[in-house]
Amino acid sequence: MKITQIRNATQHLSYGGTRFLIDPMLSAKGAFPGFPGTINDDLANPLTDLPLPLDQIVDVDAVFVTHLHEDHWDSAAVDALPKDLPIIVPTDLVAEGIRGAGFTDVRVVGDGLEFNGISLVATDAVHGVEAVTQAFPPEFLHVGGAVFSHPKEKTLYLVADSVWYDKISEAIAAHSPEVIIVNCGNAQAFGMGRLIFNASDVHEVHKAAPEATLVGTHMEAVNHCVLTRSGMGTYAEQHGFGDKMLLPADGETVAL
Amino acid sequence: MKITQIRNATQHLSYGGTRFLIDPMLSAKGAFPGFPGTINDDLANPLTDLPLPLDQIVDVDAVFVTHLHEDHWDSAAVDALPKDLPIIVPTDLVAEGIRGAGFTDVRVVGDGLEFNGISLVATDAVHGVEAVTQAFPPEFLHVGGAVFSHPKEKTLYLVADSVWYDKISEAIAAHSPEVIIVNCGNAQAFGMGRLIFNASDVHEVHKAAPEATLVGTHMEAVNHCVLTRSGMGTYAEQHGFGDKMLLPADGETVAL
Repeated sequence: MKITQIRNATQHLSYGGTRFLIDPMLSAKGAFPGFPGTINDDLANPLTDLPLPLDQIVDVDAVFVTHLHEDHWDSAAVDALPKDLPIIVPTDLVAEGIRGAGFTDVRVVGDGLEFNGISLVATDAVHGVEAVTQAFPPEFLHVGGAVFSHPKEKTLYLVADSVWYDKISEAIAAHSPEVIIVNCGNAQAFGMGRLIFNASDVHEVHKAAPEATLVGTHMEAVNHCVLTRSGMGTYAEQHGFGDKMLLPADGETVAL
Repeated sequence: MKITQIRNATQHLSYGGTRFLIDPMLSAKGAFPGFPGTINDDLANPLTDLPLPLDQIVDVDAVFVTHLHEDHWDSAAVDALPKDLPIIVPTDLVAEGIRGAGFTDVRVVGDGLEFNGISLVATDAVHGVEAVTQAFPPEFLHVGGAVFSHPKEKTLYLVADSVWYDKISEAIAAHSPEVIIVNCGNAQAFGMGRLIFNASDVHEVHKAAPEATLVGTHMEAVNHCVLTRSGMGTYAEQHGFGDKMLLPADGETVAL
């Protein structure tokens, strides 16, 4: 497989001959305000420009959307993507939102979906520590991941926005992924704590899947993400898994 | 003057023919734990290596220390600096700590100090928003800055670790600094808020001193600083003061 980091959680995934676009946030730099009630909310989002031309980013066979937050699915993505492009989502709740935006070929992974010879299974995620999940309605925090498998590819686990919890451990035990995409920008809801992986969460992933290659994403592109690639990379080195931790720059491709 | 960004708030300042070292944190990368109760406290400090050899960093005529927190004055600095080197500090309270570490030539700026033909005046600072200042004893948060002036140099205001408040506005009105060093990493005490300038605080400095050149520092080097140079630079551009905002990389020198 090839994974190209685009920006934030937006990536190109070339897998089993199919070209996916994951979690498209395609707005121009500074197009929408910082997320209210989060750290650095005086910074406008996205913090950075797209590293590739828009027409190249949307030239894919399908899109995978983990959830509907603006840093994963924005109005620029709705505008730029053909309405009949297959949009693959983990759950019915995500599908509702995508269909509501006019997309006609929305496919729900749920307990299993075949797409171009690729098997997908949806996985659970929890979008924040307890102080966060207690403060917001579950529908607002709803998010899901997926495991991708194909006879000619390594098994890939796209965790999506989550903090470390038992369901991730269970998914790793059930699917033995060899590549895991980890959203590890340590996004912070003000006064509540983190919404996604911090460095210690990634360490837990590594301990549960010590042979897996971890691909870090969702960093340095939206206001409330406070863990940088440099910080994550140094932590991984200092905790003995620097060789398993990839942190591609925006525009960089890794082949796995 | 020339200012060389070293790392965190540590800088070389060449001013009126005198070479100062400001706020030396000289430990090796990862030498001490993240600050407890702050964001990203699972990351070891400093996050990055020094950009210059240690002997080059300590080859100065004097040191200016704003306060005694470990990211401004650490055991490696105590070890590396000659005990008879002049150490200039804003207040008696900072002087006590430096003398306690065995330094014999500690000079307090207070209401005025002459050093090698340079006039210094101490300035007040407040090391955090109200939730922070209510939670910690004032001695723990004690910090001060200074205004440097010299017949052949622009007036320089070293704000030190502070959030924006009326005393900074008053110092700008009183001294009309043409260069202002701003510690703007938006360091976060967990659940309480910021300890130092965020982007909006720097905007207030700019509005109070619209012609001054702002030199951003205290970024991307310790665990709890969540505002990057890129984030600050973009904010300054978007708010119309990109041309006044310098954000030197570690090891980079600016001449002003």
